[in-house]
Amino acid sequence: MNADTGVRPCSIARSMEVLGQRWSLLVLRELLFENHRFDAIVKATGAPRDILATRLRTLEANGLVERRRYQDRPPRFAYHLTARGWDTAEVLLSLMAFGDRHLSDERPVTWQHGQPDHPHPLDPVLTCRTCGEPATEGLHEPTGPGAPR
Amino acid sequence: MNADTGVRPCSIARSMEVLGQRWSLLVLRELLFENHRFDAIVKATGAPRDILATRLRTLEANGLVERRRYQDRPPRFAYHLTARGWDTAEVLLSLMAFGDRHLSDERPVTWQHGQPDHPHPLDPVLTCRTCGEPATEGLHEPTGPGAPR
Repeated sequence: MNADTGVRPCSIARSMEVLGQRWSLLVLRELLFENHRFDAIVKATGAPRDILATRLRTLEANGLVERRRYQDRPPRFAYHLTARGWDTAEVLLSLMAFGDRHLSDERPVTWQHGQPDHPHPLDPVLTCRTCGEPATEGLHEPTGPGAPR
Repeated sequence: MNADTGVRPCSIARSMEVLGQRWSLLVLRELLFENHRFDAIVKATGAPRDILATRLRTLEANGLVERRRYQDRPPRFAYHLTARGWDTAEVLLSLMAFGDRHLSDERPVTWQHGQPDHPHPLDPVLTCRTCGEPATEGLHEPTGPGAPR
């Protein structure tokens, strides 16, 4: 908390510091798609190569992505999500759901969910683990150092 | 789909075009906190005034925010979420949950959830509306024009 300026401490702001670059989120999307190689990530995201390399290094430094050497001569690396990186999947899927609902005529991607032999299309909704109801219904009274007083 | 470059059509990318600026998301956070006035939003986000004004105009142009005049002389406006703007709450809460889990020692904000007379702390998890299970467990086989082939 910066008491002088009144700026709120905020987990959204902290997450955006790590995830907030569009290319970073699209890299995480590609890794969720199991697209692990630099050239393929460039192609599927349209990111400039130098920016993509920088974003991958930042994601690695923040513990979201790990590099694995898959070839020795010449050395070549593949990029994989760490456990922490996998934890961005809820953010990606929430962004996907918002875009599907409001910004796309045709849904670009449908994920299958559940048992591989009895899958159904994923229909994501944020709920509360405690009561099972949608998180955005009955939301009130934020408290803590980052809440309004 | 841009067939020439292989860049995927993507609802995440489209959402980031609208929401991807850090200040835009923090403005939406403030409106969710019912903090509706320009000066108060500046103070709580730390955003430069000119950038904040630009972000608010973009959010308005994209139909996420509406301006309401609350004083005539001099004219003064408050900013409110539209229905579409409210639909960003799942994205904000997913970002909050990620930051709480990985980037904060102390949770900056706790939301109350449920009936105002019997509230409990919100514990958000993305689930599937169809089966009720966590969205990120049993996720497979993305299909559509934005999926890998």
